[in-house]
Amino acid sequence: MQIGFIGLGKMGFNMVLNLLRHKHEVTGYDINESLVNEVKQEGAGGVLTLPELCQSLQGRRVLWLMIPAGPLIDRVIDQLIPLISEGDVIIDGGNSHYKDSVRRYGMLKEKGIHFVDCGTSGGTEGALNGACTMVGGDPNVVASIGQVFTDISVENGYLYTGPSGSGHFTKMVHNGIEYGMMQSIAEGFEVLEKSPYPFDYQAVSKMWNNGSVIRSWLMELTENAFSKDPKLESILGRMHSSGEGKWTLEAALDMGVPTPVIALSLMMRYRSLQDDTFSGKVVAALRNEFGGHAVDKK
Amino acid sequence: MQIGFIGLGKMGFNMVLNLLRHKHEVTGYDINESLVNEVKQEGAGGVLTLPELCQSLQGRRVLWLMIPAGPLIDRVIDQLIPLISEGDVIIDGGNSHYKDSVRRYGMLKEKGIHFVDCGTSGGTEGALNGACTMVGGDPNVVASIGQVFTDISVENGYLYTGPSGSGHFTKMVHNGIEYGMMQSIAEGFEVLEKSPYPFDYQAVSKMWNNGSVIRSWLMELTENAFSKDPKLESILGRMHSSGEGKWTLEAALDMGVPTPVIALSLMMRYRSLQDDTFSGKVVAALRNEFGGHAVDKK
Amino acid sequence: MQIGFIGLGKMGFNMVLNLLRHKHEVTGYDINESLVNEVKQEGAGGVLTLPELCQSLQGRRVLWLMIPAGPLIDRVIDQLIPLISEGDVIIDGGNSHYKDSVRRYGMLKEKGIHFVDCGTSGGTEGALNGACTMVGGDPNVVASIGQVFTDISVENGYLYTGPSGSGHFTKMVHNGIEYGMMQSIAEGFEVLEKSPYPFDYQAVSKMWNNGSVIRSWLMELTENAFSKDPKLESILGRMHSSGEGKWTLEAALDMGVPTPVIALSLMMRYRSLQDDTFSGKVVAALRNEFGGHAVDKK
Amino acid sequence: MQIGFIGLGKMGFNMVLNLLRHKHEVTGYDINESLVNEVKQEGAGGVLTLPELCQSLQGRRVLWLMIPAGPLIDRVIDQLIPLISEGDVIIDGGNSHYKDSVRRYGMLKEKGIHFVDCGTSGGTEGALNGACTMVGGDPNVVASIGQVFTDISVENGYLYTGPSGSGHFTKMVHNGIEYGMMQSIAEGFEVLEKSPYPFDYQAVSKMWNNGSVIRSWLMELTENAFSKDPKLESILGRMHSSGEGKWTLEAALDMGVPTPVIALSLMMRYRSLQDDTFSGKVVAALRNEFGGHAVDKK
Repeated sequence: MQIGFIGLGKMGFNMVLNLLRHKHEVTGYDINESLVNEVKQEGAGGVLTLPELCQSLQGRRVLWLMIPAGPLIDRVIDQLIPLISEGDVIIDGGNSHYKDSVRRYGMLKEKGIHFVDCGTSGGTEGALNGACTMVGGDPNVVASIGQVFTDISVENGYLYTGPSGSGHFTKMVHNGIEYGMMQSIAEGFEVLEKSPYPFDYQAVSKMWNNGSVIRSWLMELTENAFSKDPKLESILGRMHSSGEGKWTLEAALDMGVPTPVIALSLMMRYRSLQDDTFSGKVVAALRNEFGGHAVDKK
Repeated sequence: MQIGFIGLGKMGFNMVLNLLRHKHEVTGYDINESLVNEVKQEGAGGVLTLPELCQSLQGRRVLWLMIPAGPLIDRVIDQLIPLISEGDVIIDGGNSHYKDSVRRYGMLKEKGIHFVDCGTSGGTEGALNGACTMVGGDPNVVASIGQVFTDISVENGYLYTGPSGSGHFTKMVHNGIEYGMMQSIAEGFEVLEKSPYPFDYQAVSKMWNNGSVIRSWLMELTENAFSKDPKLESILGRMHSSGEGKWTLEAALDMGVPTPVIALSLMMRYRSLQDDTFSGKVVAALRNEFGGHAVDKK
Repeated sequence: MQIGFIGLGKMGFNMVLNLLRHKHEVTGYDINESLVNEVKQEGAGGVLTLPELCQSLQGRRVLWLMIPAGPLIDRVIDQLIPLISEGDVIIDGGNSHYKDSVRRYGMLKEKGIHFVDCGTSGGTEGALNGACTMVGGDPNVVASIGQVFTDISVENGYLYTGPSGSGHFTKMVHNGIEYGMMQSIAEGFEVLEKSPYPFDYQAVSKMWNNGSVIRSWLMELTENAFSKDPKLESILGRMHSSGEGKWTLEAALDMGVPTPVIALSLMMRYRSLQDDTFSGKVVAALRNEFGGHAVDKK
Repeated sequence: MQIGFIGLGKMGFNMVLNLLRHKHEVTGYDINESLVNEVKQEGAGGVLTLPELCQSLQGRRVLWLMIPAGPLIDRVIDQLIPLISEGDVIIDGGNSHYKDSVRRYGMLKEKGIHFVDCGTSGGTEGALNGACTMVGGDPNVVASIGQVFTDISVENGYLYTGPSGSGHFTKMVHNGIEYGMMQSIAEGFEVLEKSPYPFDYQAVSKMWNNGSVIRSWLMELTENAFSKDPKLESILGRMHSSGEGKWTLEAALDMGVPTPVIALSLMMRYRSLQDDTFSGKVVAALRNEFGGHAVDKK
């Protein structure tokens, strides 16, 4: 299939290579000229403007967006609208909020343009060698381009999840689970680390990856990480986040679902970005007030 | 009543003054000579050895321990046993674990000595002007010295809670609730502090103490703290703890009671004592492994 | 001052009585005719339509809304706009989201109408005898009607909190703290209840209200509740909520503030409304899958 | 190697088959005669008394205990002591608390008997076809029987973890992580279930097992569970637990490690076993007291 690919970052570039390997005709677009040149060297077409991208595609256009979630998606879609035709398909393969995807689907539907939300998992390595894709949108539209999702994914790694938004919703929940799993693993290793035993974390994680109940890709990545830095001494425990855990929690709150583990996984990330806390000061001051307990002075 | 008072620290000294004001005859004991001298100047007797203390009391001895919980209690009791007689009463007014109190009660009962566990709340100010006492032990024994608890407490602030251990159990749970209330207040003020509004925390806490649902002694202490240091800039948010919150949580776990708020109040205290965390490093390393997300280097 | 009072429910009715006692001239409006009649018997004016309400007020109109948060506020404001004049003041005394208040403030400002957000605490009893009010809006506007807030509140129970929205923001955070405090108390009593000791909960809460660190209005209400039903046998532990705890959590998430205690207080409420859980089924099924552990069949 | 195997339950029986397949000479012991007969039909020896078991082994005895953790372990060890000789090895392959293992190790060491603690993961299926074993004890002792652990485990699934207790400590932490992972998955599916989308949970879990970041054995078991009962309608969400999650949390508390996710995973299990809660009643009663909010009557 002919695909116009918008966004050649870490994920997007790998996905273009993946698509090329599966004999799709890809034209890549990015504002970064060197990325465009690189993708051309790999056998894709490459353009630096959206009009060129849209002109380069014959017949029904399939445009795959792999750019940061948020207002940029809206800006790119607004630029694409006058350049494309009824029946064309825009796929958002990034981590957009599912409610934004539903909104964009509705707005584009009025113009006869199809919108498909595709949650993509598997990291940069999966993008290259076989991702996991969860795709929402009109069933006939998704079916008509299903081969792309099948090709870019590992076997059985593509699922049509249902109506518009369901792909990004599924990805959001996937990430919520991921937050919880990561925090679970992390808490376990901190208990090992504070114990009186001199554990070899790489050896432990390797053993756990072979036959244990908690064997998992995340545990394999844990093993990898410890193989490079046995006690992770070179890095700080600052846990950034990019939104999907928060969205899962917000969706859960809206639906009245108790998700304590996802909530605490997120909050420990927030806490890790604070050097000192105002709440801690309040508690320390209160202990001093009622019990005369010493406070740690600055 | 004649009372031998063991331990003249912040809490104990104030309680001696309180007892003296209520016309009890108190002999104070401490290993710190200057504290003994101070208590003598206030009108109490003062001794530097336990034998002197026990000899100074006529008739049935009532000995009030106000010393740090743990093995020190056992050591002092072991020293007292040969110095006292059947029918004498030992009161532990400190923050002992209720299981230790039950054990000590049983051990002393075999020797004919009475043991009473008295949880004491209200802080140093309450110790001086009217505490809150929750007292467990044999009902007739507690009744026979009930006037002491009534006198040392504010009106209606003394309760006989039941069999041995129940006084310290009640105090333990009191402190568990206290942890949760303090963390609740602290989280609220951190939300205010991170908000776009320029709140005056002393003014807010003062207003909340007048007519709101959350008016409370802890909120009054919050107001006091902010009156001295409007943004608590002089102190660090390191929240120490002295065991009772942990015990409440452990008791809850033993009984299968979910106590998420008490648990998290305790854990945020532990977290506040860590500058960096191993769990945070694990999560940061994992994010780097699967998504190529940057880690913060040391 | 002359005040048009919109909404004569549990809170509003009591506030009208409170205002009358402070010699304000109040005209009450409600769609419920019997409430309007009742308020007239108490010495207020009473009307059944908003045009009559607005006509009944001389000079600068002050309109106090005490109606359920949400779209109803917008509908009433929309009806009021053609009926009132530049310089008039609308006070929203209910539990509106502070972002809605900021939006309404901006919309009304364009029309020359003042909007003041007033968070009100203290329950129905406080509404009658002295509330706690936290008020946001233009400082000169709030100052011009400050006597109303002073009168309706207990001494020191009124605070001008700052720009538009800050009153409702403060009230939101107040309720978040309230959630945490209530859950703290509740967890403590469940630990008492599952313990081997035969506690008298009314006696315990009464004692805790006299001299303890956790004495508070909420503990007094706990004492009241146990005085009526010593083991709360007549009621179910279903904890409903009306939004402010959720909003506090959402605001905290937006600002990156960890608020585990407020989060868990809310989630335990959600959990209490579920008879069985899908998450529980998943865990039970997994335990069965890997360990052959028995599941409880329906 | 010759092995005396004590306990032929779900796990033990499969492990005996596993050992036989690896050409070890096994004599099985159980109080259940039919299990002993079954194991004999599989090619193992089988006895009904411990003296017979000990007599059946030549040279240095290796005795593998696969029985419920707790006092039963102590009782069996007490019975074995007079039946065995210096230099013999007792392996505890069950889920004992690591502190008990350290205590048993010390007690047996005084008698010249070796004690090895072996945490075993992988469920009943792993027991049969390749388990994951984490083994603590004296290094030379463990090395001398290392082939047994290598054989019974999948490749790279056996690790010598360090001094006595470290095997069971590692298994304990493994289970703590398992609790958190399971609760993460469970929360995710509950969010899917309460969403407006008509998800097919088996299809989602299958897709997630192919290429996603959260692919894992537990997700495969999730897929299995949904393949048998698409909405888990036949079972109740009651989550039992057998102690290791609680122990992990207790160890974390002793070491001052914040483990909110493990804590909450455990507490949601406890909560799932309650039909109604006393804490819920307290909150409901309080809401009624201050706000007149309706309570749900029994």
